[in-house]
Amino acid sequence: MRIVLDAMGTDEAPSAEVAGAIGAVRLESNSDVEIILVGDEGLIHAELANHVDVPGGIVVHHAPDRVTVKDSPASVIRRKPESSIVVGLKLHKEGAADAFVSAGSTGAVMASSLFALRPLPGVERPPVGTLLPTAGDLCLLLDAGANIGCKPRHLLQFAHLGTTYMRDVMDRSSPRVGLLNIGEEPGKGDELSVATYDLLQGDPGLKFIGNIEGRDIIGGGCDVIVCDGFVGNVLLKFYESVAGYIVDLLKVELASVEDATIDLGHVFRVLDYAEYGGAPLLGLGGVSIICHGGSPPKAIQNAVSVAARAVRAGLVEHSAEELNL
Amino acid sequence: MRIVLDAMGTDEAPSAEVAGAIGAVRLESNSDVEIILVGDEGLIHAELANHVDVPGGIVVHHAPDRVTVKDSPASVIRRKPESSIVVGLKLHKEGAADAFVSAGSTGAVMASSLFALRPLPGVERPPVGTLLPTAGDLCLLLDAGANIGCKPRHLLQFAHLGTTYMRDVMDRSSPRVGLLNIGEEPGKGDELSVATYDLLQGDPGLKFIGNIEGRDIIGGGCDVIVCDGFVGNVLLKFYESVAGYIVDLLKVELASVEDATIDLGHVFRVLDYAEYGGAPLLGLGGVSIICHGGSPPKAIQNAVSVAARAVRAGLVEHSAEELNL
Repeated sequence: MRIVLDAMGTDEAPSAEVAGAIGAVRLESNSDVEIILVGDEGLIHAELANHVDVPGGIVVHHAPDRVTVKDSPASVIRRKPESSIVVGLKLHKEGAADAFVSAGSTGAVMASSLFALRPLPGVERPPVGTLLPTAGDLCLLLDAGANIGCKPRHLLQFAHLGTTYMRDVMDRSSPRVGLLNIGEEPGKGDELSVATYDLLQGDPGLKFIGNIEGRDIIGGGCDVIVCDGFVGNVLLKFYESVAGYIVDLLKVELASVEDATIDLGHVFRVLDYAEYGGAPLLGLGGVSIICHGGSPPKAIQNAVSVAARAVRAGLVEHSAEELNL
Repeated sequence: MRIVLDAMGTDEAPSAEVAGAIGAVRLESNSDVEIILVGDEGLIHAELANHVDVPGGIVVHHAPDRVTVKDSPASVIRRKPESSIVVGLKLHKEGAADAFVSAGSTGAVMASSLFALRPLPGVERPPVGTLLPTAGDLCLLLDAGANIGCKPRHLLQFAHLGTTYMRDVMDRSSPRVGLLNIGEEPGKGDELSVATYDLLQGDPGLKFIGNIEGRDIIGGGCDVIVCDGFVGNVLLKFYESVAGYIVDLLKVELASVEDATIDLGHVFRVLDYAEYGGAPLLGLGGVSIICHGGSPPKAIQNAVSVAARAVRAGLVEHSAEELNL
């Protein structure tokens, strides 16, 4: 398979992308993966030249323009047709590639993916998911900010799309779905919560486990958490920032300590978003993964691997089937 | 002044309450404070007998009944008139005490306080505030869960009530107010956000600093953050649980280490809610502070001190004035 990697997205572009691509194709589990690096070919080739033993399976596709944070997300498709985002998505749309990964402007990647890849039939509000580290397994929170003012039927679709994603990409055989709410019992929360609870509860195709309060998330026990994009976005950004803050504090404090008995690896794993690189856009006619602008090579590598797993498993086809149950 | 402390609220009642009361009246800054411990007088006296040198300024007021988590919050006033919550609030309402502090069921304390102390004139939705630890100073988030489906005018009142609280109780001379939102610029967010932004921006009585994203909270820089109670409650409970989880992990990991150069005191201070005991109910005709059911004595002591500062400063009078500007 071929995966487009936007080479111009991170703050360290194209350095993090090139290193991430090399790391991804070197993995044995990705032996079927070719990566198309899309962006300024001069810059990309110069960066590739900094690496020794660049493996096969990496090609470069020139795109002279670049999306910046100043570009209005909705206008990118029209105003920046030669940007790495638009050129890369076009390759995917036309079948020259099977998936798209970018660490560029989240809004621009979302809007352009929506335009290029189109929602699957019946999908009104394609959500963006994000994997939250917990004390247990990773949990997919959606919507993480693409849709505000959701209706109950949208959250029901999020539940199905999240279930399909966790089954296909994260190997969860029977994903448990929770509804983010401010109380445990049915009937708690706002109108959206109450009506969504009933829809989820009444759907035999879902493994609905009930309301999930803010305090329940970190403990794990849930594979998919659905919510409106407003609260999802606040929560996600808050978690990232708290985790980053604590990791920074700890690293400073522990830097001076040489005691080999201290192993905070598990603390950092819980807190370190870089491990989980990539937020999938779901419900589209293609695979599009958004990474942080600050992604290190490891996060890019992981996002490419996630995209590859989604393609291998047939995520798009399964999503369409799941919604037509 | 006299402060009612519900002695039957915590999971360790009345032990945590008695120890917290003793700690509070021993503080020099509380030399003007008397505490009325309300609850089962047999249990309270037995607990007091476990302490040596109990200072003066602590009296016991008998209340034979106790609110449990099984009681419907709205029915407590009617069905449990002899409970420590209802008896204690009555003492405050009738002027025998100047403030009320309880670690009992949050819903029951809110509903009973609302009924007993009544909203100030013009207050439609009395909010509950909670102090969030940040890398900078503590920040008051409101509403933290008492009100869902708020209107812009409610959030405007929250801003004024929070401003008054931070000025009176936390000595912030000119509290900065932020609006919790999913983007920085005006015009971002849902309908509530957009309309509230305009109201806050147009109010010369507030020091409005604009939208605050989830990622901005931990850094500090804001004294008051207003939001609907749904997102506020999710955020608060999430923060508490993440902080608790990390503190637990770190304590286990570091327990075996004897390296005196490790001082994670500042990490724990940021994360340890017990330091800040007490969420104030605002916009009422009295002072009512709600503590966690799991509060240790230190948190109870701090909540009593907070209540004392609110009384000393004239929080209720100032709140009424602020709303009538």
